[in-house]
Amino acid sequence: MADDTTPVQALKDGIRRFANVRGWEPYHTPKNLVMALASEVGELCDVFRWLTADESVAAANDPALREAVADELADVANIVFLLSDHTGIDLGDAIAAKMRKNEIKYPPPAGAEIGT
Amino acid sequence: MADDTTPVQALKDGIRRFANVRGWEPYHTPKNLVMALASEVGELCDVFRWLTADESVAAANDPALREAVADELADVANIVFLLSDHTGIDLGDAIAAKMRKNEIKYPPPAGAEIGT
Amino acid sequence: MADDTTPVQALKDGIRRFANVRGWEPYHTPKNLVMALASEVGELCDVFRWLTADESVAAANDPALREAVADELADVANIVFLLSDHTGIDLGDAIAAKMRKNEIKYPPPAGAEIGT
Amino acid sequence: MADDTTPVQALKDGIRRFANVRGWEPYHTPKNLVMALASEVGELCDVFRWLTADESVAAANDPALREAVADELADVANIVFLLSDHTGIDLGDAIAAKMRKNEIKYPPPAGAEIGT
Repeated sequence: MADDTTPVQALKDGIRRFANVRGWEPYHTPKNLVMALASEVGELCDVFRWLTADESVAAANDPALREAVADELADVANIVFLLSDHTGIDLGDAIAAKMRKNEIKYPPPAGAEIGT
Repeated sequence: MADDTTPVQALKDGIRRFANVRGWEPYHTPKNLVMALASEVGELCDVFRWLTADESVAAANDPALREAVADELADVANIVFLLSDHTGIDLGDAIAAKMRKNEIKYPPPAGAEIGT
Repeated sequence: MADDTTPVQALKDGIRRFANVRGWEPYHTPKNLVMALASEVGELCDVFRWLTADESVAAANDPALREAVADELADVANIVFLLSDHTGIDLGDAIAAKMRKNEIKYPPPAGAEIGT
Repeated sequence: MADDTTPVQALKDGIRRFANVRGWEPYHTPKNLVMALASEVGELCDVFRWLTADESVAAANDPALREAVADELADVANIVFLLSDHTGIDLGDAIAAKMRKNEIKYPPPAGAEIGT
């Protein structure tokens, strides 16, 4: 599994290069990228809209559905990486900062072992 | 910048733990996560909807807007990670597979130095 | 029920006037309106994301949820009307044209009484 | 223009019949319809994502783009109508109620002629 060892930055570099070689960067304003994100998430919604909850769980084991989900998830992730790149917002830092807010907004239930 | 050294898996582990401690995992079917993704992307759209292209570029330098974008981008990224986790679809692998398809669909222009 | 007698145009006129009085029209390019639509649909997704199918059906009978859904549905509908207004695309005509395409793409099953 | 004379209810009846004849109604829970809405709005975002504000205004005059926008706008509107139908939320009533809230939230500027 590539995710165990791949730094987030490597994925950001990969999609930036892909766009740069094709001359796409002038289109990649944050506004346009967010709109592209809504478009790609719409494609994920298209895969799942008529599935039941159980069917949506089983989809990961169906080869054709799994490939469709993987392809759309890759598209969504790539735009998240481009948006991080073009705004200079570090994903790991942003997630850590948001987690700290959410730890307060949604405190863990009493007795839960935090951080395990 | 955390993204230089943080493996994708570390971010996936972080949000999974956050959800697990709070007993949220039963809600995290792929269908529900995709719907949550559309909701969080909607919040990014809310930040950018009335901005011009130039204002959207400048937003990253405005402290209040930057924090709003960082918070929503973190939410979106976390759901991408949860979806990867719950479907067992490795993000790096999915992106590499989709890139190979896109290399064919959108060939680089003649003369472009590939992979630089 | 207002929908029985209200022409679509009356709803389009209502939201156009609301926006016009407030000087909002310069912001209402089709691009911005589509982004606003994604934002408002995200709010509907927020209401429904963790509900089961059955809970989503029951939501219409829960006063607080019903009001939340009605408010967000109104927001979505208003942006659909603004988009129709600003593009000059008549909704009834567009729907009739799309229906004709869908009649071919999804033919009714044999034996179905069409148009009942 | 059909919108001048077509009551909202006639459009709601039309899409309900289309779905009913095809046996699609069991899929049309509010949750699924909202997810379908996010999918269809994603298709509108796909049309507009790389256009400038000016190009998005001009799109309505380009025959191919206009047809694409009209088709996607029809899809979005139809799901809004189905959602209204399945929740029993009258669109005109919901819009009037939301307008009253918005009149307070966004008061018209002093001197504006209300209701003209």
